[in-house]
Amino acid sequence: MAVAYKAPIKDIVFGYEVVDTYDVIGKIPAFSDFTENIVIPTMEECAKFAEEVLAPINAIGDQQGATIENGKVSMPPEFVDAYKRFAEAGWASISLPSEIGGGGMPIALSGGTLEILSSANLAFGLAPGLSAGAISAINFHGSEEQKEKFLPKLVSGEWTGTMNLSEPQSGSDLGTITTKAEPQDDGTYKITGTKVWITFGEHDMTDNIIHLVLAKVPGSPEGTKGISMFIVPKMMVNEDGSSGQSNNVTCISIEEKLGIHASPTCVMEYNESVGYLVGEENRGLNYMFTMMNEARVWVGGQGLACASGSLQGAAQYARDRVQGRPVGMSKEDAKNSTIIDHADVRRMLMTIKSYVDAMRYMMYDNQLMLDVEYFAEDEEMKAFGEERCGILTPITKAWISDLGVELSSMAIQVYGGMGYVEETGVAQYLRDSRIAPIYEGTNGIQALDLMFRKLPLDNGQAMQRLLGDVNELIEEMKKDDEVISSMAEKLEKEVSTLSEVTLWLGGRMLEGELVDASAAATPYLKMFGQVLGGYYMGKAAILANKKFKETNDEFYTDKLTLSKFYMEQLLPLTSGYASAVTAGKDDLYAMKADNF
Amino acid sequence: MAVAYKAPIKDIVFGYEVVDTYDVIGKIPAFSDFTENIVIPTMEECAKFAEEVLAPINAIGDQQGATIENGKVSMPPEFVDAYKRFAEAGWASISLPSEIGGGGMPIALSGGTLEILSSANLAFGLAPGLSAGAISAINFHGSEEQKEKFLPKLVSGEWTGTMNLSEPQSGSDLGTITTKAEPQDDGTYKITGTKVWITFGEHDMTDNIIHLVLAKVPGSPEGTKGISMFIVPKMMVNEDGSSGQSNNVTCISIEEKLGIHASPTCVMEYNESVGYLVGEENRGLNYMFTMMNEARVWVGGQGLACASGSLQGAAQYARDRVQGRPVGMSKEDAKNSTIIDHADVRRMLMTIKSYVDAMRYMMYDNQLMLDVEYFAEDEEMKAFGEERCGILTPITKAWISDLGVELSSMAIQVYGGMGYVEETGVAQYLRDSRIAPIYEGTNGIQALDLMFRKLPLDNGQAMQRLLGDVNELIEEMKKDDEVISSMAEKLEKEVSTLSEVTLWLGGRMLEGELVDASAAATPYLKMFGQVLGGYYMGKAAILANKKFKETNDEFYTDKLTLSKFYMEQLLPLTSGYASAVTAGKDDLYAMKADNF
Repeated sequence: MAVAYKAPIKDIVFGYEVVDTYDVIGKIPAFSDFTENIVIPTMEECAKFAEEVLAPINAIGDQQGATIENGKVSMPPEFVDAYKRFAEAGWASISLPSEIGGGGMPIALSGGTLEILSSANLAFGLAPGLSAGAISAINFHGSEEQKEKFLPKLVSGEWTGTMNLSEPQSGSDLGTITTKAEPQDDGTYKITGTKVWITFGEHDMTDNIIHLVLAKVPGSPEGTKGISMFIVPKMMVNEDGSSGQSNNVTCISIEEKLGIHASPTCVMEYNESVGYLVGEENRGLNYMFTMMNEARVWVGGQGLACASGSLQGAAQYARDRVQGRPVGMSKEDAKNSTIIDHADVRRMLMTIKSYVDAMRYMMYDNQLMLDVEYFAEDEEMKAFGEERCGILTPITKAWISDLGVELSSMAIQVYGGMGYVEETGVAQYLRDSRIAPIYEGTNGIQALDLMFRKLPLDNGQAMQRLLGDVNELIEEMKKDDEVISSMAEKLEKEVSTLSEVTLWLGGRMLEGELVDASAAATPYLKMFGQVLGGYYMGKAAILANKKFKETNDEFYTDKLTLSKFYMEQLLPLTSGYASAVTAGKDDLYAMKADNF
Repeated sequence: MAVAYKAPIKDIVFGYEVVDTYDVIGKIPAFSDFTENIVIPTMEECAKFAEEVLAPINAIGDQQGATIENGKVSMPPEFVDAYKRFAEAGWASISLPSEIGGGGMPIALSGGTLEILSSANLAFGLAPGLSAGAISAINFHGSEEQKEKFLPKLVSGEWTGTMNLSEPQSGSDLGTITTKAEPQDDGTYKITGTKVWITFGEHDMTDNIIHLVLAKVPGSPEGTKGISMFIVPKMMVNEDGSSGQSNNVTCISIEEKLGIHASPTCVMEYNESVGYLVGEENRGLNYMFTMMNEARVWVGGQGLACASGSLQGAAQYARDRVQGRPVGMSKEDAKNSTIIDHADVRRMLMTIKSYVDAMRYMMYDNQLMLDVEYFAEDEEMKAFGEERCGILTPITKAWISDLGVELSSMAIQVYGGMGYVEETGVAQYLRDSRIAPIYEGTNGIQALDLMFRKLPLDNGQAMQRLLGDVNELIEEMKKDDEVISSMAEKLEKEVSTLSEVTLWLGGRMLEGELVDASAAATPYLKMFGQVLGGYYMGKAAILANKKFKETNDEFYTDKLTLSKFYMEQLLPLTSGYASAVTAGKDDLYAMKADNF
C-alpha cells in the first residue's frame, strides 16, 4: 500500500520566507491583506482536502484511468465526486481576481497549494489547471460579453476549460496549424479541424467544457502571425447561462499514456462548431503567450510535486524496512536498524530532499515574480518582475521537471524491489512525472527560450543583474557564520564557471554563430538551474541559521544541512556540463541522420 | 506503431574488436575455433530470430502480461510459441559447455546475442537467462547424478530453471532467510518456506521448472554461513527423465510491476517439497557467488539493450517528424528538414548513441574476462581474468543499468508527446529498464562491492593495474593522430581526478573510516564508470581511425565522432562527482531519520 500523503506545510511556509514573499507582496497594493496569517490556514485547509479527498483516489485514477466509449469520456466516479467537492470548496479560484469571483489571492499563494494538490493527485489537478488557463485568456483578452457569459461558471468550477493548440502536424511549431475559422454574418465563426493532446478535452465531471481554440481565418497571414483564438463551448450556452444544445465538438479518441491516466488526453474534432473570437483576429499566439509563463511554472511545479510526493513514501519505507547491517555498525546496534541507516539510502534521501527544497524555492520565487509582473503598480518593479520572470520561467519549467523524473526514479531505488511493484505508488510518480519535461514546450524548447530570448534581454544586462544578485548573496554569505561562508565559496566557484560560459555564449551569438548557441542550450540550462538552486539554498541557509538562533528548532538545522549538502555534493555537478556548453555544434552534426 | 527492431550487427562486431576479443579468446585453448567467422553469422541468425519472432510480440507481452488464476500462470500464447522456437533453434545453450549439450562457445559470444535478444524483448529473455543460472549452478556444483537428471532438458530448453534467494524479510541480506530444509533418510530434504521475486517461477511454456532454492538445514550456523542450495523441481522427475507428479511447489501470486510484464515475478511457496542438496551443506552462498558475476554483467546488458533499442525508434522518429525550423537554417532548407536537424535532438541522439557504444564495449570486455577467468588454462591469465572481472562487474552492472533508465527516458524526450504514448514502444523501454538497477544486487550494493571488496583487492594493486592500463592507453592515444591525441588529454584529466579520489578513499579505509567510504560508494562508482567508458571509447577511436584508413568506410568516422563526443561532452561529468566522493559521511547522517 502507498503511504498516506501528508502535505509538508512547514517546508512550504519556510519556502515562502526564503524568497521574501511577504516583503515583495507587501509592495503590491492589491495584495495588502496577504500575510503569513493567510498562508498557513490556507495550506492547512488545502492539505486536509488533498490528504483526505485527492490522495486516496490517486491510485484509483491510475488503475482505472479515463475511458472512452462512443465519444463519451468517463472518469472514475471518485473523480467526479472529488471534482464537485473541489469546486465547492473554492480551490479552483483562490488566486483568480476577486472581480471575476475568485479569491483575489496572489499567484504566489498557489505555489504551495499547487504543490500539495499535485503531490496528492497530479492527474486530477490538470483539470482545474487548464481551466485556469482558459479563464486567464478570457479575462485578459475577451470581451465584456464573453466574460459575463463564460467566466462565472468557469471560475466557480461548474465548467472546466481547455487549451487547444496542437494539431497532428503542429506540435512545437504552431505556425503550421490548419484548423479553419470561417467568419459568419452574426459575428461568430465556424471552427473546423482536429486538435490533439487536449488535456481534459472531454470528461463527465461537468456539464459543459469551454475550449480555447487556435485557428486560422481564411486569408490571414501565413505562419504564426495568422493565428486567432476562439472560445468554442462543448455545449452552446443559453441566454440564462445554462448549457444548451451540442456544438459539434467531438472527442475522437484518448491516448493510452505512460502516466496521468486519470487525465484524458483527447483528440478533438471541431466540425463547423460555433466559435467566438477572443480579442482581435491574428493575435491568438500573443494572447497565448501571456498565459504561457504561468503555465510553464506550473509544469515545473508538477516535477516538484512528484519528487516531493515520492520522497514521503521512500523515507517511510526506509525507516520501516529492516535489511542488512550498515557499514561500521555493530551487530547489536544493527538489530534496531533499518535501511535508512545505510549511507547509500541516506544519500538518495538527502539528494531528493535537498533538490526538492531548491526546486520549491525556485518555483515560489518564479510565481512571486509573476505577481510582480502582473500586479505591481510601480512601473520599475513591474518591469523587474517581467524581466526576472522571463529568465526564471524556462529554468523552472525544464530544470525542475527533469529533476522530477530523476528524483521519482531515485525514490523507486530506495524501495528496492518494492519500488518496481505498482502497489507502493512510487512507480506512479515516475510515470506521472515523465510528462512534465514534454508538454507546455519541451525542455529543449525551454533551453532555446533561455538562450535566444532571455540571455540577450536588455543586451545581456538582465542576466547580469540576476548573476549580480547571486554574487551579492555570496558576499552576504561570506559575512555569516563559518558553515555559511564555506558554502559561499562553493557557490562562488560554480557561479564563476557559469559566468564564463555565459560570456562565451554571448560572444558566439554576437558573432552570429547561432548554431553553436543552440547546441549549447540544454547543458547551459542545466548549469543555470544547478547554480540558481544554489542561490536559493544559500538564501535558505542564511534564514535557517537566523531562525534556529531564535527558536532552537531542529527543523532549521536540518535546512542548514540540506543547503550544505546541496552546495558540497550537488552543486559541483554544474562544472561537469561546461565542456558540453562550449563544445560547439560540429560533433552534433558530424554524423549523417541515417547513421544513428 | 513501434519501429521494427533491427539488430545493430556492425556495431556489435566492431565492439568485439574494440575489446580485443579474438586476441584474448585465441589464448584460451578451449575456444581455438572461435573467430570473427563465427561471430558474424551467429549475430545474423540471432538478429533474424529477434527481429522476426521476439520483437513483434514485445508489445503484446507488455499489454497482456503474464496472468495468474488458481496458482496457474499463463503466458500470452505468442510467448509459448516463441519459447519453443527459441529452444529448438538452440539459443538457450550457445555458450554452455559442449559436454553438457551446449554450443561450447565462449561467454563473450553471448554479449552480442544478449543485447539483440533483450533489445527485441527484454521480458522474454529473462526465462532462458535464469535457466542459464540454474544450469551453471548444477553444472559447477551438482553431482553427476544431478547433472544427468536435470541438465539435458534444461540445456535443450525443454525445461526452464529459476533462482530462489529472497524471502519477504530477506532481500539484499540473505543471512536472514528462514526457508527450512529437513534432511530425509533417503538423502533428500524436505523444503518448506516462501520465496519472493522469483522470475519465471511459474509459467506454461514448459512442462517442468527446475528451481534452485537457498534454504537452511536445522542446526546449521547462523547467517550467511548456514545456507545450503537445493534443486527443487516443480514436478518430480521420473526414471525415464519425464516430468512426473507434483512436488508441492506453488505460485501464490505474481507482482503487478512497472514493466517486464511478460516476465512473471512470483511468490513461491514450498511445502515439504523434495529438494536435492547441491554440493555440500552450508556452502550455498558460495555456489551462488560463482554465478553472480555472470548474472550481474547480464543485468548491465539489459540496460544496454533498452538504451540501444530505444535509440532506434527515437532516431527513426527524429528522421521522420517534420516540425519547426532549426536555428540557423534558411526557410527554404527547412522545408526538407525534420527534427533530427535540431541541435538539441542531435544532442540527445548523440548522447544515447555514444553512451551505448561505451556501455557495449564495457559489457563485452567484462564477459570476455569471465571467459578468461573460467576457461583460461594459463594460471596467470586466469588470475588476471578473475581480478579484472571482479572490478568490472559492479561497474558494468550499476553504471550501465542506471544509464539504461536515463537514456531510455531521453529517447522518450526525442519523441516529444508521442514518447509518452504507449503505442510507440519507447515508454515500454523506460518501464522495462527500470528493474535493472534494482535486481541482482541493487546498484547501491554494487557500489559497496566496488568499494569494499574490489578497491582493496591485492592491497589496491588490482585497481592500480586497471588505472595503469588506462594510462597506457592514454600514452598510445597521444602518439596517434591529432583528433585522438586531443581526446587523450580529456581522458588524462579525468583519470587523474579519479586516481586522486581513489587514493583519498584508500586512505580513509586504512584509517578505519569505513563509513566515509560507504558514503562515497555510489558517486565513486559513477566516476569510475564514466572514466572506464572513456577508456573504451579511446580504444574504439584508435581502432576506428585505423580501420577508416583501410576501408574508407564512414561507419568508422562515425565511431571516431562518437568517441570524441564522449570525451569532450560526457566524460567531463566525472569531476562533478568528486566532491560528493570526498565529502565524508557527516552530512548524510546529520538529519534524524524521522525528519525526512
